[in-house]
Amino acid sequence: MIPFNKPFLTGKETLYIEDAVKSGKISGNGIFTQKCHSFFEDKYQFKKVLLTTSCTDALEMAAILANIEAGDEVIIPSYTFVSTALAFVRQGAKIIFADSYPDNPNMDATLIESLITSKTKAIVVVHYAGIACDMEKIMKIADLHKLVVIEDAAQAIDSFYTFSDGTKKALGSIGHLGAFSFHETKNIISGEGGMLTINDEKYIDRAEIIWEKGTNRSQFFRGEINKYGWVDTGSSFLPSEIISAFLWAQLENLDKIQQKRLTIWNQYFEHLKDIPFIHTPQIPDFATNNAHMFYVIFESVEKRSQMIQYLKDNEVLSVFHYLSLHKSDYYKDKHDGRNLQNSDNFENTLLRLPLYYDLSESEIDKVISLIKNFNK
Amino acid sequence: MIPFNKPFLTGKETLYIEDAVKSGKISGNGIFTQKCHSFFEDKYQFKKVLLTTSCTDALEMAAILANIEAGDEVIIPSYTFVSTALAFVRQGAKIIFADSYPDNPNMDATLIESLITSKTKAIVVVHYAGIACDMEKIMKIADLHKLVVIEDAAQAIDSFYTFSDGTKKALGSIGHLGAFSFHETKNIISGEGGMLTINDEKYIDRAEIIWEKGTNRSQFFRGEINKYGWVDTGSSFLPSEIISAFLWAQLENLDKIQQKRLTIWNQYFEHLKDIPFIHTPQIPDFATNNAHMFYVIFESVEKRSQMIQYLKDNEVLSVFHYLSLHKSDYYKDKHDGRNLQNSDNFENTLLRLPLYYDLSESEIDKVISLIKNFNK
Repeated sequence: MIPFNKPFLTGKETLYIEDAVKSGKISGNGIFTQKCHSFFEDKYQFKKVLLTTSCTDALEMAAILANIEAGDEVIIPSYTFVSTALAFVRQGAKIIFADSYPDNPNMDATLIESLITSKTKAIVVVHYAGIACDMEKIMKIADLHKLVVIEDAAQAIDSFYTFSDGTKKALGSIGHLGAFSFHETKNIISGEGGMLTINDEKYIDRAEIIWEKGTNRSQFFRGEINKYGWVDTGSSFLPSEIISAFLWAQLENLDKIQQKRLTIWNQYFEHLKDIPFIHTPQIPDFATNNAHMFYVIFESVEKRSQMIQYLKDNEVLSVFHYLSLHKSDYYKDKHDGRNLQNSDNFENTLLRLPLYYDLSESEIDKVISLIKNFNK
Repeated sequence: MIPFNKPFLTGKETLYIEDAVKSGKISGNGIFTQKCHSFFEDKYQFKKVLLTTSCTDALEMAAILANIEAGDEVIIPSYTFVSTALAFVRQGAKIIFADSYPDNPNMDATLIESLITSKTKAIVVVHYAGIACDMEKIMKIADLHKLVVIEDAAQAIDSFYTFSDGTKKALGSIGHLGAFSFHETKNIISGEGGMLTINDEKYIDRAEIIWEKGTNRSQFFRGEINKYGWVDTGSSFLPSEIISAFLWAQLENLDKIQQKRLTIWNQYFEHLKDIPFIHTPQIPDFATNNAHMFYVIFESVEKRSQMIQYLKDNEVLSVFHYLSLHKSDYYKDKHDGRNLQNSDNFENTLLRLPLYYDLSESEIDKVISLIKNFNK
C-alpha cells in the first residue's frame, strides 16, 4: 500500500534529543528552541519567531495578541482546517466566513471589503497548499481599515510572494502575525508542532509573556528584571526541547527535503496536467510552489469518490480535505447564511495524492499511470 | 555544582521515538499515547486519561469541561503556579484565592465554605509537593454545594489519599477532573507534558472532542461515525507521539524512579528533621509521600536568602518557589483584598533542595552537611 503520507527522519533527530537531555534541559526554550528561532529569523526575515506545541497554539497566540474580544468579527476562509477559526472563537470572536476563488482554494481577495463592518478586527488568510494568497491586495485593504492580518501559513514553509514592485517576501513574513505547522503531514515535521511569526515589532514583548504562561520569565532569564511573576494572560505555548531538537534535525535538511518534494510535485504535474477529467493546481504569477501538496480537482463528488475507491483498490491512498466550516455542526447556526459555493465545491471535488520524501520513482509512476488509466 | 534538578533518561526514550517514526505516525494519539493512557488508567484507577502538551493545557481542558464562563467564581490556592489560575482566567473566571495552612502549603480546607457564593462553580485543589489535600472534607463541601472539584496534581504522580473508611485512592482520581505534569522538574518527565484525568464519566465524550480541536475525530477513527467535523470548542491539546514515546520509557521505570527518590527524600528528612532553625515537611496521616520535592522552611526571608547564597557559594543550587498569586501584577487589582498570610509566609520562607534520580550519596551528604554547618 502506498500511504498518503509517511514521516521522514533525516537521521539526527534522536541524536539531538539525546544532546538535549545531556544539556540538562528538556523543558521549553532551551538550546534547540533557540537554534530553530535563529534559523527561521535569518532565513525568512521574520522579525521574531516563537516555536509552539502546534499551529493551533500559534493561532491562539495571534488571537490574543490581536486583542480579539467577545463580539469582534474576524474574516476567515471557510475552506480551511478547524483551528484557523477555533483559535479566534476561543477569544470570543464572531467568524465571518469568506469564499474561495472558483479555481483556487484561497480566500477570494476581491470579496473581503464587502465583509468588513465596524466590528471587524482581523483578517486571517490561509495559504492553501503553500500557494500564496493575494497579499498585496489584502494588506492594502487591511491598512485602509486598520485591521490586523494573520497569515495561517501552516502549509506554507519556504514559499514566497512577489509584490508588484518586484519585492519577494516569505509567506508568514507579510502579515502582522503568522502561524506555521510542523505536524507530521507537513514538509518539515516534529509530529505535532508549530510556530508563531511576528512581523510587527509592537507585539514582540507581549508575545514572549503570553508564550510563558503570562509570566515575564523570558525577561528574567535575560537579566532584565530581578524576579518573574504573573503579568498577563497566556498559556503554556512553548514546546519541549525534545520537539525542538527533532525539528532542528529537519531544518538542517530543509533544502534537500524541498528539492525532493519539488521533483515529485513536478512529475505529478507534468503527467497529469493534460488529463481531461481533472484540473491541476494553478500557481499565480505572484506565488511560488513549496511542493507541500499535490491535489487534483474532479468534476463531481461522485467522480472523486470513484477515484478514491479505484486508487484504494490498487493500493494507493488518496484523501479529500476540508469540510466547509460555515456548514459545520458547530458553526452553521452562527453563520450569516451566505452561500459559499466555491468552498463547497472544493469540499466535494478536491483530492490529494501521496507526496512524501521517501516516495519512490516507481511509486510515483504507479500513481500517475493508475490515474491515466482511470477511465479505461 | 550540584544543580537543583537534572532530567533523567531511563535509556529507551530515543529507541521508542525511533519506533514511533517507524510506525508511520508521530502526530498525536498514536501507539505510545495509547500505551500511556492504558498504563495510567490501569495503575491508578482513573476512569479515563488524555495526555496533553502540558499540565496548563490539562487544566484548560478541565476549565472548559467544567463549563466555566465569564463571571463564574473558582476557588484556588494563592500559593501555586500561575497555570492553576490562568487556565480558569482564560475561560473568564473570577479567581477567589484561598490561603494555605500555617504549617502546610496546601489550601486550608476549613476556609473553603466561607469563600463559596452563588457564583462559585469549582474548587481547584493543588497537592503541593505531592502531599494530598484533605480530599474527604473537600469532596463533602463540593457535594453539598454542587461544585466541580479539579485536582491540580502536577506534582502528585504515584501519591495517595486514605479516606476515613480506609479506602485509599490515587491523587487525581478523587475529584471530578485532575491534571498532571511531566515537566522536566517532575518525577516522571517528557520535557514539557501533561495529562488530564477524568473520574466523572459524563465528561469523557466531550473531553475527547475538546482534545482534538473541537472535532469528533476520535469517534471517527473508532468507526462510530462516517466523517468527522467541527462540533465544539477546544484546542490542539494532544502531544506528539515523540513526547508520548519518551514518556512511555519513563513509565516503564516508574517504580524504580520512585524508590530512588524516596530513598533520597528519607535521607534528607532523617538528617534535617531535628535542626532547630528549619522546619521539615509534615505528612498528614491521610497522605502518602511521593518524594516529589524536599523542602525546608526558615524563620524569615533573610535566613532563607542567606542559606541560598551560602549553598551557592558551596556549589549547591537551592531554589525558592511560588509568589502568592493574589499579589501578582496581573491579579492584585482583581483580588478581593483579603490578607493571605500563610501563602505569603511560604513565598518568603520555603526552600527546595536538590532532588533528582542521579543525585549521588556523596552529593546528598554534602548538602546535608552544609546545612548542618550553616550557623558555624
